[in-house]
Parts: sequence; structure tokens; C-alpha cells
Amino acid sequence: MKTTRADPQPADFTDVRATNLAVVLRHLRANGPSSRASIAASTGLNKATVSSLAGALIEQRLLRETGLSGNRIGRPGTALTLDGSAYAAIGLQIAADRLTALAVDFAGDQLLLWHRAFDGGPATTGPGRAVSAVAALAQRAATRVRQQGRQVLGLTVAVPGLVDGGGTVRLSPPLGWADVDLRALLSGSLRQPGLDVSVANHAGLAAVAELRHGGHPTLDLTYVTGAAGIEAGIVVDGRPLHGSRGFTGQIGRFSLGPAGALTLADLAGIEPLVRRALPGFGPEPVTDLTPAVDHLAALARAGDAGALSALHDTGCHLGQGLALLANLVNPEVIVLGDHYAALAEWLVPAAAAELARNTLAPSGGGARLVASTLGLHAAALGGAVSHLDRVDTGVLPTNT
Amino acid sequence: MKTTRADPQPADFTDVRATNLAVVLRHLRANGPSSRASIAASTGLNKATVSSLAGALIEQRLLRETGLSGNRIGRPGTALTLDGSAYAAIGLQIAADRLTALAVDFAGDQLLLWHRAFDGGPATTGPGRAVSAVAALAQRAATRVRQQGRQVLGLTVAVPGLVDGGGTVRLSPPLGWADVDLRALLSGSLRQPGLDVSVANHAGLAAVAELRHGGHPTLDLTYVTGAAGIEAGIVVDGRPLHGSRGFTGQIGRFSLGPAGALTLADLAGIEPLVRRALPGFGPEPVTDLTPAVDHLAALARAGDAGALSALHDTGCHLGQGLALLANLVNPEVIVLGDHYAALAEWLVPAAAAELARNTLAPSGGGARLVASTLGLHAAALGGAVSHLDRVDTGVLPTNT
Repeated sequence: MKTTRADPQPADFTDVRATNLAVVLRHLRANGPSSRASIAASTGLNKATVSSLAGALIEQRLLRETGLSGNRIGRPGTALTLDGSAYAAIGLQIAADRLTALAVDFAGDQLLLWHRAFDGGPATTGPGRAVSAVAALAQRAATRVRQQGRQVLGLTVAVPGLVDGGGTVRLSPPLGWADVDLRALLSGSLRQPGLDVSVANHAGLAAVAELRHGGHPTLDLTYVTGAAGIEAGIVVDGRPLHGSRGFTGQIGRFSLGPAGALTLADLAGIEPLVRRALPGFGPEPVTDLTPAVDHLAALARAGDAGALSALHDTGCHLGQGLALLANLVNPEVIVLGDHYAALAEWLVPAAAAELARNTLAPSGGGARLVASTLGLHAAALGGAVSHLDRVDTGVLPTNT
Repeated sequence: MKTTRADPQPADFTDVRATNLAVVLRHLRANGPSSRASIAASTGLNKATVSSLAGALIEQRLLRETGLSGNRIGRPGTALTLDGSAYAAIGLQIAADRLTALAVDFAGDQLLLWHRAFDGGPATTGPGRAVSAVAALAQRAATRVRQQGRQVLGLTVAVPGLVDGGGTVRLSPPLGWADVDLRALLSGSLRQPGLDVSVANHAGLAAVAELRHGGHPTLDLTYVTGAAGIEAGIVVDGRPLHGSRGFTGQIGRFSLGPAGALTLADLAGIEPLVRRALPGFGPEPVTDLTPAVDHLAALARAGDAGALSALHDTGCHLGQGLALLANLVNPEVIVLGDHYAALAEWLVPAAAAELARNTLAPSGGGARLVASTLGLHAAALGGAVSHLDRVDTGVLPTNT
């Protein structure tokens, strides 16, 4: 609970330095290799300051010099670029059917992407085995990037459901977990003192990845998960919306009918969709949705009337749910993620029409509905890049 | 549209100064009269810096010395306090049935609170007459505070409905307005060059007032209007949620039934409530809700079964709507405003039960449902204090 007004902290020269380090890092992150002179010209910092900041960042191995200047200001051959050789960050993603590990270097280049089959649905015997599997995968990923000579800036685990600010999974219906202190369990298993381990909601981390790598020209976007549940990751003015306890974005709980009626997750979820559109599923939960989604997409592409009708209905319900979201937080872009992305071609027309019809603001308040291009591991990517974001605020890593 | 990442601006000594001015102003705002020594001790600024900052603020007449030190650190008789004598800020509030003007001095003390009967509902002939009435009231309020020797820091008008970032009312169902550039019209009418005129959503401004004066120990609150419509003003981590175009908080549009069904405003609005509970209303809109709400409260207090039943039903629907909001933005406090506040005693039990029942997070994600104590002019107060907030960030007024 935050009980006091967010008073500003007194500022001193350390803050000026951190702010200006952030200016240089973000300029290079956004613009690619640039000369000191062009950084100075673009940011308003004077050249001596840029040189001093660059010197410190080179010494810390966050920047390096390169011959490839992206512009013509300054002498050729002296451009600066982000240095990927010294640091890495790791994201892990837990879903009911698989684990994903992803690592990026400080320059944002992907170092590894591993998937592991995983039976983590609610029918299993609790989180113990899952935590061990996650810890083992995290350990392997960390070992791999260390063998490459890189220091791990941090590791973030993405989980569907309610995750509090301390890294405890309070409730994850897709995993069947309640009150699992995943951050403490993982920190204990990893035995790497000083490693920054975080746990956060899947949708929120995917939204961070979309903000940074999704190619959307906006600071106000919402990412919608379409996996074993529907959740929204909401970014407002470039910052993830955490709420008072971290429990935001639970749009799957929206009920569009009278009390006790079906929820948005029932009406517009991926599993109900494939059950409606495809024959032959038993009563047990469908955890591995990918083959069913591929099959459904193939049917739709072939013009199958049943598939198209099921997709249209799901799109309508989804649009109604997204209208509630648009009425409340007014995003500029709504990104359909996970399995929705593969079906977006057929979902979006109906969803966009219902979205526009059900918002008070004209045209859905300007919200554009787009498909994610980041694949099924967007949350793992978001978990990894969140550690780069932290360095980019001017909080440089302490060498361990 | 915000199309670029919110890159930090380079920092220099001016920013350090502004940040530290903000630290001093907010310390005094939060803690009352304090000596220079106690400010230094509480904020971490050194005494020489505090003295220098205080000198500048006294010279600008934002602070004054007082004999009333609230603590025992430092010599008695040399405490600093906010100075209300030189500056004022004005908030205006437009509702379908009345205009409200409110002014506060820089110390936050109320200088005037005026109400004017106003026939501004959708049946009237458009915004022209309304704008003239608002401009006349604004002019009178500004003249009054100037006659008291105070410079006007700014004037903000609260309007129900969609207001964009430029001060245009895009759509206000309670007023029947569409695309009214109220900011330009008012700026033109007032003929006071340099006066900072803003227009913003009623609920958002009321939320700002609640954050500052509502007595809620939180940075994550949502204010819910219960007037001629239902809107939410959402404050996240101490900042109002504006979304991409300013069109947030339209919870009145939530539909809890199948497509085309009744909205939350139909089911839980104040006007539908008084119509259900009290006989004798004609088909025309009930604009002056206060007498009806008073009557309903009196009946409920006397145990009238029909009144209690109507309030219970409205409370249930309201709680279902607030659950959608709590699932999405996870506020710590939900403030029932306007006419809801007068009826909160009977609405809250049912609403709180439905809120808890319909959120994924236990206990509604921790959201507490409380009644506003700021009365029917919370939005006007929010409009006025928003200008004090700006000074408190260290952006000192330029003397005109």
C-alpha cells in the first residue's frame, strides 16, 4: 500500500548525471549508431558532456565505438553504438503447456530462445515441480550467457494471473496456483546472490515488449493475451499500469450478461473458440492450443463456413469486451497477442465494428486493433527487456 | 497522438533547482509550517540550500515567515508556511442544472464558492448561451480575486463527457454538446491574455481533488460521478489517467447485459434510481437531482421499503460495474461522488458485496468503497487545485 504522496526526492548532481546517461542510452537505443556530435546536436547536451558520458559508458562496456556511423555529422569511423558483449537479461514465461526462456544482450539482440514442454495445468500436483522446472531452465539460461562472458542484469518470470509487487503469484487460474511466492522460491533455487529476480504478469510484460519492439508508434497501448485466459497488459504514457497491488488487466472476468452469466473469457477465449469450431475435444482442458489454432486458421483460409462463423462470433464478443477497456483507459493501440494474433485476420473485422459501436468516443476513442508480430514468447521478451529499460533510465549495473 | 518514446530531456542545474523547489513546497503543503532546519532534516537537503530556496520562494510570495512553528527544531518564530496572499486559482464546473465557481489561494484556502442556476441540458439551444454564462462567471471570479490583490495562476473548467487534450468538448451527453472548443471560446471571451485556461473532464478533476483533499491515504484512487451520468476519474500512482486522447473513465457505457441491453448508467444512475424510487416524474430529464436525492435519503432513513429496495438494486448494479473497473485498474480506494455520496450509507453494502464477488482478486483487489466528503463541487475544487499542483512541481508563476 502506498500511503504517502509521491514526494519528489531532492535532486543533486548525481541525478543530473543519471538523467543525462539515460538521454545518451535512449538516443542510441532509438536511433542506432551515432557520432558524439550528432548525439549532442539531437539531445541538446553539449559535446564535452556527451564525450564524458560516453567515456563512462564505454568504460562500463555499455557502449562501444564502431566505424558504422548512421549519419554524416562528425568524423567518419567514430560512431557510438550499444555494446552487447558484456551484459544480458533473461525472461522466462510459464504457461500451462510450456516454459519459454529467452535472453537478449544489452544491444537487444536475442541470444537464446528455448521452449520446454511442461504440464503445468491446474490438474497437476501443485507448483513444486513447476518451480523446479523453471529454476532449472533459468539456471541453464544464466549459465549459457555467462559462458559467453556476459553478466546477467536480471531475470524476470512471466506468469498468467495475479502477481503482487513482491513477486508472489496470488492466483493463477490457468496454472491452478494460489499464493506461491515464486520470487523467493526461485531466488532460493538459483543460489546466485545478487541476481535480480522478478515475477510479473504475463500480459503486462508482453505489453512492455510491444512498446519496445512491436513497431507501434504510441505510448498508450494495451496488449490482450489470447492463451489459456484473457488478460490485458496496459501501458499508459509509456509506463505499465500496476494499480495498487499489481492486479490490473483482468478483462477475462468481464461479464457481458446478467449476474452469473458467461464472462468474456467464456465468450471470446481461445479454448472456447476452438471447442466451438472444431469437433473432437474431450472434457479435459485443452492446454496445447497451437495445433488447434493452426487447424482453425487453415479451415478459415479455405472458406469453411463453420470456422468463419465461430471466428465472427468470437470477434464480436471480443470487441464488446475491448470496448469496456477502451471506454475506461482509452488506448491508442490494442494489440491482439498470443493465439489471437494467428487468427486476427478473421477476428478483427467483427471486433473492430463492435469496439466502435460500444465506445462513447467516436471510432473507439481512436483505438486501432492490430495483431502482435512478436509471437507466443512476447512476455518472455518483455521480461528480458525490462532489465534493459532499467539500465536505460541511467541506473548502471554494478559489476559483480 | 504521442508517436515517440517519452525520452527524458537533458538535465541541468535549472532542473535540480526546480526539483528542489518542489521538494520544499510539497513538504510545506503536506506538513504545515516548518522551520528551515526541520525542512532540511526531513528532506535531506542541506540547510544552506533550504535557505536559498526559501529566499527565492519568499521573494516570489509563495512562502512567508510565521511565528507558528509546528515543531521544535530550530529557533522559535522562524517557521515557513505557504503564503496565500499573492496568488489564487479558479475552478469552474458545468452541470446540466448549475454552474459552480470556486477559488482557492496558494495556501489552499477557499476564497469563494458560487453557484448559479443554469439550464444547460440537451434540450436547450446549444452551447452559445452556456459559454457566455460560464465566461461571465469566470470573469466575475477572476475580478474578485484580483480585487483582493491576488494574481490568477489559472482557471480550469470541469465538464461531464469527453474532453480532448486541447480543451475541446468532443461529446457531452448530459449537456448535449458535440465538438465545442470551450477553451478557445472562453479564452476569447475573457480577454485576459496570458491567463492559463484549461478544460477537463469532471470526474478526472474531482479525482485530483480527492487525491489532495479527500483524506484518502493512497495514490491509486478512482472517483465515480453520480450526477447526470456515471464517469470515473482514475488516478494511478498519483497521476490522472488521460489515455491517448483524454477519453478515459466512461464506465456509464458499460453494458452488463447482452448486446443492446441496458448500460451501467441505465441500471445504476442517479436519475433512473430516483425515478424508480419516487413517483411523479414526467418524461423530461430530471436535471435538478438534489431535492429528489434528499427526499430519497429521508425515506431510506425512515425505513421505507420501496426506497431501500431501489437503493439495494442500484447498489448491486453499481458494484458489478465497479468490479469491471477494479478488475482492470485495481484502485485502492473507490470514491462515490456527487449524489452517490449522500446515498452511500444504503448503496455501499450491496455494491461492496457485488464488487468483491465479481473481481478475480480476493476482496476486490483491496479496493475500499467510500463516500466523498467534498460535496457537489469536487470537480471545481480539482480544477482550482490543479494549478497549485503545477506550481508545486517547481514551475513558479511568472508575474504578470
